[in-house]
Amino acid sequence: MPELRKDPVIGRWVIISTERGKRPNEFLQEREPELGKFCPFCPGNEGKTPPEVLAFGEPSREKNKPGWWLRVVPNKFPALQIEGTLDRQGEGMYDKMAGIGAHEVLIETPDHNAHISDMDDKKVEDIIWAYRDRILDLRRDQRFEYIMIFKNKGAAAGASLSHPHSQLIATPMVPVRVRQEMLGGKQYYDYKERCVFCDMIIQELDANVRVVAENDHFVAFEPYAPRFPFETWILPKNHDSHFEDMQKAEAYHLSRIMKTVMRKIKLVLEDPPFNYTIHNSPLKDSPLPYYHWHIEIMPKLSKIAGFEWGTGFYINPTPPEEAAQFLKEAE
Amino acid sequence: MPELRKDPVIGRWVIISTERGKRPNEFLQEREPELGKFCPFCPGNEGKTPPEVLAFGEPSREKNKPGWWLRVVPNKFPALQIEGTLDRQGEGMYDKMAGIGAHEVLIETPDHNAHISDMDDKKVEDIIWAYRDRILDLRRDQRFEYIMIFKNKGAAAGASLSHPHSQLIATPMVPVRVRQEMLGGKQYYDYKERCVFCDMIIQELDANVRVVAENDHFVAFEPYAPRFPFETWILPKNHDSHFEDMQKAEAYHLSRIMKTVMRKIKLVLEDPPFNYTIHNSPLKDSPLPYYHWHIEIMPKLSKIAGFEWGTGFYINPTPPEEAAQFLKEAE
Repeated sequence: MPELRKDPVIGRWVIISTERGKRPNEFLQEREPELGKFCPFCPGNEGKTPPEVLAFGEPSREKNKPGWWLRVVPNKFPALQIEGTLDRQGEGMYDKMAGIGAHEVLIETPDHNAHISDMDDKKVEDIIWAYRDRILDLRRDQRFEYIMIFKNKGAAAGASLSHPHSQLIATPMVPVRVRQEMLGGKQYYDYKERCVFCDMIIQELDANVRVVAENDHFVAFEPYAPRFPFETWILPKNHDSHFEDMQKAEAYHLSRIMKTVMRKIKLVLEDPPFNYTIHNSPLKDSPLPYYHWHIEIMPKLSKIAGFEWGTGFYINPTPPEEAAQFLKEAE
Repeated sequence: MPELRKDPVIGRWVIISTERGKRPNEFLQEREPELGKFCPFCPGNEGKTPPEVLAFGEPSREKNKPGWWLRVVPNKFPALQIEGTLDRQGEGMYDKMAGIGAHEVLIETPDHNAHISDMDDKKVEDIIWAYRDRILDLRRDQRFEYIMIFKNKGAAAGASLSHPHSQLIATPMVPVRVRQEMLGGKQYYDYKERCVFCDMIIQELDANVRVVAENDHFVAFEPYAPRFPFETWILPKNHDSHFEDMQKAEAYHLSRIMKTVMRKIKLVLEDPPFNYTIHNSPLKDSPLPYYHWHIEIMPKLSKIAGFEWGTGFYINPTPPEEAAQFLKEAE
């Protein structure tokens, strides 16, 4: 059973995966991860993953057999485990609890070499719809406080398999980074009586120097103070605190702008490794006037070094205005 | 002039290095950085760096000529610039200021291939003493609020040159990560009337399951909730909030434990890339009862991925007790 432990100074929780218990030589072997060997996510290998919790496919299809075009399975090596109770305990001055949570893999396509920008619109919409489905299902579990949906592409961005997939981790507490974001949104709202993200959208569309793409329901821009070169955010234009409240029309527009932005990033940066994360409200919060869900896309172009680790400050060598220009023009 | 910009949600400042203004193709070339070509830090190449601000060497030595065994120079490509005024401004809803600060490089040895664990004790003590000297000098500049001293070793840890060196960045504000740490220490102190780091030292020495090394003045242990495998902290045993208040006897003991710990990490993890950061009090604070300066060493063994970026949560595959065992036994 993995363990959740709390840093007594910062209050940050850490998942200690005791079951993996990596020894030094395992890290050394990993320095050059081998992508593209046997793929457990390819059709025909359904037996190599835990049984699916959701799949979209042909109506005649049998469960855990080929014929799917999207498939969600529990992670075979989960960071957190679904069974058990939290069992909060002290250990002298320290705090810990059992590593309870959910860790799922969303296999986005049967095509091992697909890129989102080349996929059918409808298939991309299905990915978004599956994200929503899994949140709606998992939030019924009262132990969970937050669900983070994210994608790692490329070894440099932390992916260990190259078949297109996203991941989802449900945690039994609201993570520290999310709490900071909620607090920042609330402080702005208390002072201005407006959503800080809504204000950003208005200013960005007006200034039009960092906007990368937009459609009826969404806008993509480089944020004013990005941590990373070519960091790109996608936000719904209308205020909405919860991703899972999305309607079909919005999912359609989100799939279109995702494809556009990812194609631009692929073109300008030659298919870079990247991470994206869906920043959403905590599961048990009602609709919030001060928070606005959004997606943060971070191409992996630079290394995080000591200064960033020590200070939380980032040094970004590319002004977002220049990055936006490159992305906007790419077609 | 670089620009400091503030994220309006999180309140995190970011340095936008407009002078570097990296274009997409520059990142692509960098994916495989070439270490070990011409080295501007080697003796004889003193003219390739800005003029030194501090050097230890032979008494007869001319400035900016060989004969030194430690040399501190301004960074040729500084993230922040020393000349100018802060010039705080709004930009619509956003906040920015001029990128004022100091960015120096401390060349630790003339020997391009040296490793700290093989260096003379006295030379390692000189490195620590030089850190202290630079803080004492720079803190006289009233514009600066914080100085972060850090070391990046290896390309994976963000180093662009392989010659042994540390860096120092002075910032015109207390960075967000430091403020969180100060706040956490203060909250613990308000509740317990004790320093949280002092309490950790007592519990760690008593439990003796995460301790890696100790001597008269310092202890090194794996923290209870480490973000990374083999993350190791070094703390002075006696409460002390400011690194620069160090006395000669302490510098001697710090140099010894640094050598020991770095040798163990080199042995167990086969000379891994790593970062270390010196966590210190803000420059203008008087001695603080609730903060305790320390060094955090982070071998670069795993990749930071979407989950970590989105949540601030870390997944650590090696329990610190196991890591401590490996390091303790290594000789």
